[in-house]
Amino acid sequence: MDTYRPPLRDVRFVLEHVTPLADLTGLEDFAHADPDLVAGLLEEAGRFAAEAIAPTNREGDAEGARLVEGGVRTPESFQRVYEQYVAAGWGAVQHPAEHGGGAFPLLVANVVKEFITSANMAFSLGPLLTTGAVYLLQHHGSEEQLQTYVPKLVSGEWAGTMNLTEPQAGSDVGAVTTRAVPQDDGTYRITGQKIYITFGEHDLTDNIVHLVLARLPDAPPGTKGISLFIVPKVLVEQDGSLGERNDVEAVSLEHKLGIHASPTCVMAFGERGEGAVGELVGEPHEGMRQMFTMMNDARLGVGLQGVAIAERAYQQALAYAQERRQGRAPGAEPGVQSPIVEHADVRRMLLTQKASIEAMRALCYANAHALDLAHHADDPVTREQQQKLADLLTPLSKAWSTDLGVELTSLALQVHGGMGYVEETGVAQHLRDARIAPIYEGTNGIQALDLVGRKLPYDGGAFVKGYLADLRDQAEQLPEALAGSIGGPLTEALDALEGCTDWLFEHREEPNDVFAGATPYLRAFATVVGGSLLAKGAAAAHRALDAGETDGFGADFLQAKVTIARFYARQLLPSVHGLVGAITAGQEDLYAVGPEQLAP
Amino acid sequence: MDTYRPPLRDVRFVLEHVTPLADLTGLEDFAHADPDLVAGLLEEAGRFAAEAIAPTNREGDAEGARLVEGGVRTPESFQRVYEQYVAAGWGAVQHPAEHGGGAFPLLVANVVKEFITSANMAFSLGPLLTTGAVYLLQHHGSEEQLQTYVPKLVSGEWAGTMNLTEPQAGSDVGAVTTRAVPQDDGTYRITGQKIYITFGEHDLTDNIVHLVLARLPDAPPGTKGISLFIVPKVLVEQDGSLGERNDVEAVSLEHKLGIHASPTCVMAFGERGEGAVGELVGEPHEGMRQMFTMMNDARLGVGLQGVAIAERAYQQALAYAQERRQGRAPGAEPGVQSPIVEHADVRRMLLTQKASIEAMRALCYANAHALDLAHHADDPVTREQQQKLADLLTPLSKAWSTDLGVELTSLALQVHGGMGYVEETGVAQHLRDARIAPIYEGTNGIQALDLVGRKLPYDGGAFVKGYLADLRDQAEQLPEALAGSIGGPLTEALDALEGCTDWLFEHREEPNDVFAGATPYLRAFATVVGGSLLAKGAAAAHRALDAGETDGFGADFLQAKVTIARFYARQLLPSVHGLVGAITAGQEDLYAVGPEQLAP
Repeated sequence: MDTYRPPLRDVRFVLEHVTPLADLTGLEDFAHADPDLVAGLLEEAGRFAAEAIAPTNREGDAEGARLVEGGVRTPESFQRVYEQYVAAGWGAVQHPAEHGGGAFPLLVANVVKEFITSANMAFSLGPLLTTGAVYLLQHHGSEEQLQTYVPKLVSGEWAGTMNLTEPQAGSDVGAVTTRAVPQDDGTYRITGQKIYITFGEHDLTDNIVHLVLARLPDAPPGTKGISLFIVPKVLVEQDGSLGERNDVEAVSLEHKLGIHASPTCVMAFGERGEGAVGELVGEPHEGMRQMFTMMNDARLGVGLQGVAIAERAYQQALAYAQERRQGRAPGAEPGVQSPIVEHADVRRMLLTQKASIEAMRALCYANAHALDLAHHADDPVTREQQQKLADLLTPLSKAWSTDLGVELTSLALQVHGGMGYVEETGVAQHLRDARIAPIYEGTNGIQALDLVGRKLPYDGGAFVKGYLADLRDQAEQLPEALAGSIGGPLTEALDALEGCTDWLFEHREEPNDVFAGATPYLRAFATVVGGSLLAKGAAAAHRALDAGETDGFGADFLQAKVTIARFYARQLLPSVHGLVGAITAGQEDLYAVGPEQLAP
Repeated sequence: MDTYRPPLRDVRFVLEHVTPLADLTGLEDFAHADPDLVAGLLEEAGRFAAEAIAPTNREGDAEGARLVEGGVRTPESFQRVYEQYVAAGWGAVQHPAEHGGGAFPLLVANVVKEFITSANMAFSLGPLLTTGAVYLLQHHGSEEQLQTYVPKLVSGEWAGTMNLTEPQAGSDVGAVTTRAVPQDDGTYRITGQKIYITFGEHDLTDNIVHLVLARLPDAPPGTKGISLFIVPKVLVEQDGSLGERNDVEAVSLEHKLGIHASPTCVMAFGERGEGAVGELVGEPHEGMRQMFTMMNDARLGVGLQGVAIAERAYQQALAYAQERRQGRAPGAEPGVQSPIVEHADVRRMLLTQKASIEAMRALCYANAHALDLAHHADDPVTREQQQKLADLLTPLSKAWSTDLGVELTSLALQVHGGMGYVEETGVAQHLRDARIAPIYEGTNGIQALDLVGRKLPYDGGAFVKGYLADLRDQAEQLPEALAGSIGGPLTEALDALEGCTDWLFEHREEPNDVFAGATPYLRAFATVVGGSLLAKGAAAAHRALDAGETDGFGADFLQAKVTIARFYARQLLPSVHGLVGAITAGQEDLYAVGPEQLAP
C-alpha cells in the first residue's frame, strides 16, 4: 500500500506555469540547466527516491537510530542508500561548480529534496543539515576552511551539523553559554553541551563537521556575543587526511514521537579534557548574523518537509480509498459495496489534501524561485526585490506548510479509518514524522512573529502592500471562465487580508496587539498566496485547454488542475474570513486573565 | 510536570450555571442525588483519578498490553488500580439501583468518566465498554440474562465488550458475516472473526461478557439480518459459578499509534470446535436496532475522551508555560528571560485550548443532561423533545470534541517546543492517544452524515430550526455588558449557520450535495452550540459578579469565565464564517475529477 510515486507531472506543471524555471535558465549562472537536462535529473531523482529510499521508511522507523559503544548506529538500510546518494551526487545539485556542485537553481534542488523527503524524512535530515553547513562555510569560511571542508560536504563524503540549541537557549538563541577559549595556535577550545542536534553523530560518513555557536571569553551578552566555530568530529591534517578524534561526542539520544531513524543527539564538547578543538568562522561575535545566511534556505527546507510528508500520506490515502469498499454511495448499484472514494465525505478529504499540497508546493517553489533570483538575477534592483520577496515568503513556507503537514497527514490517517491507527499501515508514521516540522528551525510561533515583526515593516509597509496589490491584479486578470469561481473568492479573500494588514499597521505601536494576531495572520496570508498560485496554474491550464495545446500534460490532467484550484477557491480559501476575528482582536482578552486564573 | 488536577471548580460551574444538575435532582428518579452528595462523589472521583490512576498513564503507555500464553497481560499497575475501581464502585454510578448501581444521572457519571479518562485514557476504555454492555442487557436482555450478567458487570467484577467490526464490515456494519447456528438446547454456536475489539481479552476480571453481532442461517442480507449474542469468555453455570472456558480467544493484538495499554484484539470465535456458545439477546435480526440503544451514550462517551485528553494536555502545557523561560516579553525587565506564558502567541495557544475545552465540556454535559431528561423527565412531551435534542447533540459531541481533542493536544505539544516531541515529556502520548477518538464508535465522517441525514430531517426540519431559534433568543437576551463582545459575534455566527441549514434543506433532493458539506457543517454547528453554552455561563458569571455573589467560586474565577467566553466569541467562533463556502459548495467539484486524475 505504502508505495511512493514522485509527482513528476505535477512538479513539471509548476515549473512550467507557476514558478517558471525558464525565468532562471535565461540567467547566465544557470544557462547550462536547460529544461531537458532538468527533466532528466528530476526523473532520475524521483526514481532513486521511490525505488531505493522509499522502501527504507517503515523499517527505519521500526529500527530507529541507537546509541552504541563508540557512536550512533543508523538503520542498516541507511548505509547502503547513503552510499548510493553520495555516488550519484544528489547532495551536490544546488552547490556552485567551484565547490564540486551541480550549480542548479535552488528551485531544482528543492524538487530533489521534496522527493527524497517524501521517500524517507528521517533519512533526508542528514543531507539537509549538511547543506546548511555548506552554505555557512561558503559565505563565511576562510579560503583554507573552504578547501578543507566544503568539497567533502558537497559530495556527501562528510556530513555537517548545526549546533545551536542548549537547554536554556531554544527560541532564545542569545542565551547560549557554550564557551570558546582562544589558544596560542589560533584554534579554540570549545566546552559545553548542545541538545536536539540532528544527526549529531552517526555511522554514515567518516567525518562530521559540526558548526557550533559559542561565546568567547570577552563576548557581550545576548545574540551580539555569539561566534560560530567549526568543530570536526575527527581533526583534519594539513594534507586533508583524518587525524585524531576530537573531544566531541553524542552522550544520549532523544526518544521521540517520530523521525525515529534520525538521531537527535545531546552533544558534549570537551568533556574529556580541555575542550574540543575548534576553528573560528569569520569574525568574532558574528555568529548570529552568519546563521541568518542560511536561515531562508533552512526554513524553506523544513517547509518542504510539510509538502513532502503530506504528499506521501495523500498518495497512500488515495490508493486506500480506491481499494477499500464500504457502504453504498448514492446512485451506486444495490447490493455492492462502493470504493470509499465514491463517498462525498471521503472525496472531500482527498481533495482537501490534494489542493492544499499543490498550494503549499507552489508556495515553497515560489520561495525558491525568489531566492534564486535574489542570488543570480542580472540587475541589482531585481536581486533586492526578490530577496525581500523571499524574506516575506519564508515564514509562510515554513509555518503554513508544516502546520498543514500535520493536519493533512492526520486527514490521510482518517481516510484509513481503523487501519490508519495501526502502525503497520504506515500512515501513522507520517503524522508522527510530520509533527516535528512546526517545532524545529524556529517554531511556527516564531515564524509568525518574524512575519509581522520583521517582514511587514519592509519599506514602511510598502513592500507587502505592493505584493498584495500584485496578487489582486492577477486575480482580476484571470480568464473570464474562472473569474466567478476562482477570481471572486480570491478577491474577497484579498479584501479580508488587506483589511487585516491595515489593522496590524495601525496597531504597530502596541507590539502585543500585533503579536496576538500573528499566527492567524500568517495562516491567512499563506492561504491567500497559495490560492493565488493555484489560480495562476488554473489560468494556464485553462488557456492550454482552450487552445487545444495539452501536449505533454493531457487534457484530463489540465482539467483537474482547474477543478483543484476551483475547489480550493470555493472551499478552503474562505477560511481566511474565519480568521479575521482572531487577527484583529488584539491583546486585551489574552492578558485579562493571569495564569493562575487559567489553572484548574 | 505531567500531573493531573481534576477541574472540580470548572465542572461545578457548568453543573450549576450551564447544564443545571438541579433540573435533574428535582425529578423523582434522582431525588437522592442532592448537590452535596454529588459534590462529595465528584471530589472523591477526582482524587481517585488524580492520585491512583494518573500516575499509571506514562508507564502504561511504555509497557503496553501484551499477548502472552493464555491471554493478554495489561500493564502491572492496571490490576491494582482496577481493584480499587471495583472496590469503590466507580463503574456503578449511572446504573439503576435494582442492578446494584448508584442511580445517579448520566450527567454526574460523565464527570467521573471525564476525570478517569484524563487520568488514563487507555485504562478508561475497559469500563467504557462494560457500561455499553450493561446498557444493552438492561434494555434487551431476558430476566435470566439480567440476573446472570448485569450485577457483575455493574460492579466491575466482570467486564463487557462489543464485538461489531469485521475486516469487511467497519462503517458498513451490515456486512457482518460471523455466523450463529441455533442448537437444540436453545443456545447458539458462534463462528467467525472480529477485529478492533477493545479490551477483547485481558487479565483484570475473572470473566468477560462479549456482546457479538452475528447472522442466523436464515438472516436477510444487510443490517436487517444481524442478531445480538452474549458469548461469555467463561461459561456461567446455573448457580452463577464459572464453568468451562468458551471457544473464544484473542489471536492477536494491534500495534497502534496510541492507547498502547488498551488491548485492541482480533477475536476468534469457534476456532477450536463447533463454535463458541452464545445466547441470543432479545429477538432474532434485532441486533442493529438494539445497538442503537447504547449509541448515544457510547458516542457521547467517546466525545468526552476528546475533552478529557485535551484537558490533561492543557494542564501540562499551562504548567510548562509558567516554568519555561525564553526571550523577553514586551515590557518585561531587560536581561531576564520571561516565562513563555507572558508571550502573546503562547497565551493565544493556551486560551485557545482553555476556551475550546470549556465549550466542548459544556456541549458534552448538555448532551448528557438531555439524555437524563429524555429517560427520566416526568412528562412524555419533555422526554420526547429531550430525546430529539440528545440525538441532535450526539454527533456534535462525538465528532467535534474528538477532532478538537487531536488539534488541542497537538497545540499543547507545540507549547512545549522541542520538549513536546520527546516522549518522556508525556504530552506526545496525549496526541497519540487522542488520535483514535475521531475514528472509532463511528468515524467523524459518519457522525456528520448522521447529523445531516438523520437529525436535520426531524419534524421536517422544524426541530433543528426551533433549536437554533432558541439559541438566537438566548444570544439576544445576554446582559447588556456582554451584548457587543459576545452577543454580537454569536448572532452573526447563528446567521451564518441558519443560512447553511437552509441551504442544506433546499438541496435535500441531492444527497451528495448535502453529504459534501456535512463535515464542515457539523463543525460550524458545534462551534456555535459551544459558543452559546459559554455565553450562558458568562452571563451567569456576570450576574453573580454584578450582584457581588461570588461565594464558592471567587471573583477571579468568575471574571475569567467572562473573559474566556469573550475570547471564544471574538476569536474562535468567527471560524464559522470561514466554513460557509465548504458547506454550500455542493458536490460539483468533488465529482468533477476521477481518482485517476488525482493520482500522481
